[in-house]
Amino acid sequence: MLHDSEIAEAAELWPIARVAHEMLGVPDEALIPYGRHMAKLDRTWLSTLDDAPLGRLVLVTGISPTPAGEGKTTTVVGLTDGLRQIGVKAAAALREPSMGPVFGMKGGAAGGGYAQVVPMTEINLHFTGDFAAIAAANNLLAALLDNHLHHGNALDIDPRTITWRRVLDVNDRSLRDVVTGLGGTANGVPREDAWDIVVASELMAIFCLATSLTDLKERIGRIVLAHTRDGSPVTAAQLEAQDALTILLAGALQPNLVQTLEHSPAFVHGGPFANIAHGCSSVLATRTALQLNDVVVTEAGFGADLGAEKFFDLKCRLSGLRPGAAVVVATVRALKHHGGVPVAETGTEDLEALRRGGANLRRHLQNLRDVFGVPAVVAINRFPNDTEAEIEVVREIAESEDCRAVASTHAVDGGAGAVELAEAVQNLLDKDEVSFSYCYPDEGGVVEKAEAVARRVYRAEGVGFSKRALKQLDRIEADGLGHLPVCFAKTQYSFSTDPKALGAPEGHTVDVRDVRLSAGAGFVVLVAGEVMTMPGLPKVPASARMTIDGEGHIRGLS
Amino acid sequence: MLHDSEIAEAAELWPIARVAHEMLGVPDEALIPYGRHMAKLDRTWLSTLDDAPLGRLVLVTGISPTPAGEGKTTTVVGLTDGLRQIGVKAAAALREPSMGPVFGMKGGAAGGGYAQVVPMTEINLHFTGDFAAIAAANNLLAALLDNHLHHGNALDIDPRTITWRRVLDVNDRSLRDVVTGLGGTANGVPREDAWDIVVASELMAIFCLATSLTDLKERIGRIVLAHTRDGSPVTAAQLEAQDALTILLAGALQPNLVQTLEHSPAFVHGGPFANIAHGCSSVLATRTALQLNDVVVTEAGFGADLGAEKFFDLKCRLSGLRPGAAVVVATVRALKHHGGVPVAETGTEDLEALRRGGANLRRHLQNLRDVFGVPAVVAINRFPNDTEAEIEVVREIAESEDCRAVASTHAVDGGAGAVELAEAVQNLLDKDEVSFSYCYPDEGGVVEKAEAVARRVYRAEGVGFSKRALKQLDRIEADGLGHLPVCFAKTQYSFSTDPKALGAPEGHTVDVRDVRLSAGAGFVVLVAGEVMTMPGLPKVPASARMTIDGEGHIRGLS
Repeated sequence: MLHDSEIAEAAELWPIARVAHEMLGVPDEALIPYGRHMAKLDRTWLSTLDDAPLGRLVLVTGISPTPAGEGKTTTVVGLTDGLRQIGVKAAAALREPSMGPVFGMKGGAAGGGYAQVVPMTEINLHFTGDFAAIAAANNLLAALLDNHLHHGNALDIDPRTITWRRVLDVNDRSLRDVVTGLGGTANGVPREDAWDIVVASELMAIFCLATSLTDLKERIGRIVLAHTRDGSPVTAAQLEAQDALTILLAGALQPNLVQTLEHSPAFVHGGPFANIAHGCSSVLATRTALQLNDVVVTEAGFGADLGAEKFFDLKCRLSGLRPGAAVVVATVRALKHHGGVPVAETGTEDLEALRRGGANLRRHLQNLRDVFGVPAVVAINRFPNDTEAEIEVVREIAESEDCRAVASTHAVDGGAGAVELAEAVQNLLDKDEVSFSYCYPDEGGVVEKAEAVARRVYRAEGVGFSKRALKQLDRIEADGLGHLPVCFAKTQYSFSTDPKALGAPEGHTVDVRDVRLSAGAGFVVLVAGEVMTMPGLPKVPASARMTIDGEGHIRGLS
Repeated sequence: MLHDSEIAEAAELWPIARVAHEMLGVPDEALIPYGRHMAKLDRTWLSTLDDAPLGRLVLVTGISPTPAGEGKTTTVVGLTDGLRQIGVKAAAALREPSMGPVFGMKGGAAGGGYAQVVPMTEINLHFTGDFAAIAAANNLLAALLDNHLHHGNALDIDPRTITWRRVLDVNDRSLRDVVTGLGGTANGVPREDAWDIVVASELMAIFCLATSLTDLKERIGRIVLAHTRDGSPVTAAQLEAQDALTILLAGALQPNLVQTLEHSPAFVHGGPFANIAHGCSSVLATRTALQLNDVVVTEAGFGADLGAEKFFDLKCRLSGLRPGAAVVVATVRALKHHGGVPVAETGTEDLEALRRGGANLRRHLQNLRDVFGVPAVVAINRFPNDTEAEIEVVREIAESEDCRAVASTHAVDGGAGAVELAEAVQNLLDKDEVSFSYCYPDEGGVVEKAEAVARRVYRAEGVGFSKRALKQLDRIEADGLGHLPVCFAKTQYSFSTDPKALGAPEGHTVDVRDVRLSAGAGFVVLVAGEVMTMPGLPKVPASARMTIDGEGHIRGLS
């Protein structure tokens, strides 16, 4: 099989205006082109859709991730193409890739094989400039804050309490822990500081949760940057920053439209971290896609315990969007790993290990049904050396939870390989057995909400809070924000906080050691594990293997 | 008169494809659209122009700048529109504005009044993403360098010798002097570091001097980042960075096309600092404009001593471009200030002060003629309260150097206000009296070249070098780069290094205290004054006065 980048390069892309017309009925005047194969949808035109009925929303989530890989993004793309192949007006809603990992370890993130969104190179690099706009706005706010300290600190900000960090879209470990403002009185006020990768910015989460330009501006105004010496929160509004930041983000906030290799529409917009934020593409792009399609396939980060929980309890709660069905992506290899087989040996048939590892899949299916009331189908992202017997075992595991499991070969066969999966999903939507509810109600405090997620989704015995975390919760309560929903930052590899506890552990405790307020995004982050918000580069970065010739032909980007 | 932003907002813009067709004869397939009113010109299509004859190049430069303002950019725009009005196929080639000043003190930089390039908001903000791409590439190189130190420092780089800085496009004084890599062994190697604004990056200068993608990659490979412990230069090529950086810049390197308020084509591309770099828009955009037009009007930073000198000795020398004429912009108010009148009083008629200040204008005209062999015309950027007698005095000053001076009212009247100026420029081009030469030949060392600029252009008695500067020159010589042309960083307010020495001082000495190597750009920077490469924000930044409503209407951006 060809390499991802060779497939992308050989693809015959349609002009984006043709995708808009033929696939969505969207006219030329609605498009703001960025190059020939990318466009944003104009805000003014979008406002004419306000009363349009919404299509059905399908969430692609997964089992607890393993190093063997699951393939959620390719499944979103394949399923969308499969739905289009059976005559359903469908679109994908995906996150934008971050450039940091592109030049670091991972390479691109626009799907793979014959289930990709294109133009791959542009999407993996600057795309339509959204991340650059978010970084510019984020860093202007940081500059305004330090500028306030420099010019007399009229608000009496305690520099030691500043939580607003600068960001770049690059893997750069040297920026994790820095001191700024050195060199004398002309250069501001010296203080400890830290940089994050742009996808870890609260502004990225805000961008993805905003329901309008006005909502974006109000959320920005509510960002808490620091506290005063007498303990009051200092917001971006107090620095008169919300309009300038919104000006920097106004263009970017308009949803991006690209296409899959089969010309299905793909709304690729925003991309917050899935640990310290909610990990879903933008509400505005999802809503636009739902206004223009009968079915929209979207994705959440990590496994269903983290990604789907945040999709439901944060993105759906804060936007009013409602899921119609869920797809849980699993691979035979990953389930064998959950059953105790080392990654290197997961290529060999082992039905017993597969059955043991199936506990992880069952737990996620139970949660979707019992906690959230969302019907699910299992997508087995099939690899060439998966045996028929193994596929059959996964089917049995799913059936034991009253779910169908469908093997899908979209990575090799494109939409044709996902037709059976598409039929299963459409069938689920037709039966309409959703009785959606959140894991916890809007009412109640942070501790109560944390307990609900930990007990109901993670199957923990309870939540422990460090002294530091309790103190931080007191301050959030005092700031009048004790009612916000919660966003756990913990390992994605296990239901517990121990990345080695694979399968379906229970009876553990979730220890919260740190609490971070994202007042603009509208949630409280509970840190229960190592959280890396600025990755580093490996000894031989991906950048060293890339080449470009005099005509602009690129090799090695993905 | 309406405010700049009101004029820009009321303008009826043509679709950029119409500007390309009607004004340039450029077909649709040559355009890569960015929104409806901006486009890049496709690299593949541009290669079909390789044998096209070049039009004539007109440099707009100025007297030594004063706080009273001269208006070079508006003159470029007005003159271009004026040339179009008299039937000349003309275009403007301008620098892109930096976002830092937009949110700081200065506001936008896309011309003013009825001599603007549009869409003003987009050009002043993210535009087509060029600056973001340059920042991303610049900062990837910094991350690769620190990553090399972290993973064992196989090249034996001395971290104290690192000269490659990170950049952002924001005014942020807190980043001028920092310490990075703190927090233990996981976070890299602690070291002193500093950030510049993106326009001060050597990569910006490289971007603007590159003649092709291949040339860009080779220049990037030659960048000297640091030295090893035994004193050898460490280049970007040694970090295998040149391809990855070129990949990040390949899209951006394609010239941008926008329009003036009168639909004249404007190539707005790149924008390096005019002190530590050469201060001109990109060679590729200038060349493209020359291939598509009979006359191209472009601009250099600061006054003619700095801006025009670098335009000729760096941009023209390194690219092979040849000037056809120069326009020296002056205002009555600024000349009175050069004649000793405080800025606040320059609104009152004072013919004697004007005659005294005229020495500054005369000196620049002499330099253009005697040093560079370029015929010049004086553009008097006329203000409402300039008197007829004052205009007449400026005419006399110009005539004493065998030059014409033409009053121009393009800021109020658009191209119609610059028709006489356009005729004067066209007349100069028709006479074709250019006998262009550089200030110094390619041969010779840095000291020789510095002496030539100081004596011939600044009219100094000579150049002094600090011990530190001499040591740095020794190293550059040892690295085999002692033959590069020179780029002075000194005050723009005077021919001398004393910003208060207005008019036409002579007999001074130029003291070089610091030398910086820009090996990729291909010049040696001689620092003879304060050089600020990261501005700060004022107490009340421009950002605090900006507003945006729910439909995206912006106020206060310019």
